[in-house]
Amino acid sequence: MSDHPNPATPATIAELLTRTSVRMFTPAPVPDGVKASILDCAFAAPTAGAQQLYTIIDVADPAIKATLAQTCDHQPFIASAPWVLLFLADCRRWLDMYELAGAPARQPGTGDLLLAVVDATIAAQNAVVAAHAYGLGSCYIGDIVEQREQVVELLGLDPYVFPAALLVLGYPTEQQLRRTKPARFPREAVVLTDRYRRLRPDELRSAIQARGEDFDRTIPAFCKRKYMSDFAAEMNRCVRDYLRPFLD
Amino acid sequence: MSDHPNPATPATIAELLTRTSVRMFTPAPVPDGVKASILDCAFAAPTAGAQQLYTIIDVADPAIKATLAQTCDHQPFIASAPWVLLFLADCRRWLDMYELAGAPARQPGTGDLLLAVVDATIAAQNAVVAAHAYGLGSCYIGDIVEQREQVVELLGLDPYVFPAALLVLGYPTEQQLRRTKPARFPREAVVLTDRYRRLRPDELRSAIQARGEDFDRTIPAFCKRKYMSDFAAEMNRCVRDYLRPFLD
Repeated sequence: MSDHPNPATPATIAELLTRTSVRMFTPAPVPDGVKASILDCAFAAPTAGAQQLYTIIDVADPAIKATLAQTCDHQPFIASAPWVLLFLADCRRWLDMYELAGAPARQPGTGDLLLAVVDATIAAQNAVVAAHAYGLGSCYIGDIVEQREQVVELLGLDPYVFPAALLVLGYPTEQQLRRTKPARFPREAVVLTDRYRRLRPDELRSAIQARGEDFDRTIPAFCKRKYMSDFAAEMNRCVRDYLRPFLD
Repeated sequence: MSDHPNPATPATIAELLTRTSVRMFTPAPVPDGVKASILDCAFAAPTAGAQQLYTIIDVADPAIKATLAQTCDHQPFIASAPWVLLFLADCRRWLDMYELAGAPARQPGTGDLLLAVVDATIAAQNAVVAAHAYGLGSCYIGDIVEQREQVVELLGLDPYVFPAALLVLGYPTEQQLRRTKPARFPREAVVLTDRYRRLRPDELRSAIQARGEDFDRTIPAFCKRKYMSDFAAEMNRCVRDYLRPFLD
């Protein structure tokens, strides 16, 4: 590796490996300079055709945070997070530019939307990595897609934007710093060579057992609590509706 | 900041700010230990409910790389990339676990899919950041969603998986290291407070001008070359078809 210009930087690798999600924060505000640097890292993320197919909403209004805490499956810590960032996949900004320039443009399709979702998420993850480097904790809130009608009204969302990732950030409480990172699957359950295939029953079982869990106890309980939950049904209902303008 | 446990690590921030996409690589292979560490960083990424809703296909077969170079809008550098990783949003693995455990489970919906796309992309971006720390270059290939029928056949994709992100990686050539990072929008064009709104015409114009480009020349050309291109139409056609099993 010694003849390569960017040698291994174990600091970065260690940061990526040890980061855990943080949901409880001290009241300390995030300094403006730190916020600006983290946002710069988000902007610097790879982006399709340098388009930055996202808009970031910095949710500062405590009333809006409090409402999001409710619409996102009732998670009060969202209301008390010092910094709340919503990464929207934005298929509107470039469309508006095309129209302003008098360029003939079609309506956005699901391909445009998915490209923008990926773009927005890449930027969000750069923010997460940067935040961790500054000693900030963060957590993604997948429930942001729920209660679509209320969220669209609350945040003034355009039909051609989609809430890809909600992040809450702040300095972790002592208790949060002591949390154990949840176990991950062994590599062979996640990485395949050359072609996709469904895992065999023995592979599915050992993937869960390798995380220290009992397959026959964990899986039915998780299925009932998460996959068959009301909030999962609500996510599916709402995402379908978010997709509608892109399917026309 | 001094009383926080993880002080600012400018090394990480500088790495995030300076990384640029790399498409041309030296023939040097990526050492197995480096690959393993990068994959570990991907696994360590935040993931909804610790589910790791992705499968990574390590495309090692030169014939498959060569075909992907064609299906991804004819980009020959994909065929010669030392390391090619496809991050699939995977709604199949957990469904198979539920069925194996005898847990009553519904078919995946678009909410499940979008959650998995975000999960897969977060993991992919951790791999990109880790790769850069090891001196590796990388590039996302959005065109992986094109030529769906051929790609599904080639890679044996299941109807409940979706190609969220294709990454090519390797050691950058000298020429690639001299590339300038494309300009980004000024913050005010990307970050809004509390609510979404469409940018005004003067804001749209100055967003492009701030990147050193002429709005009336750049935008119509970009619209024609990218947004109205055959490959964009192909992406929209294919993503719509990828979504179909989740819309039923």
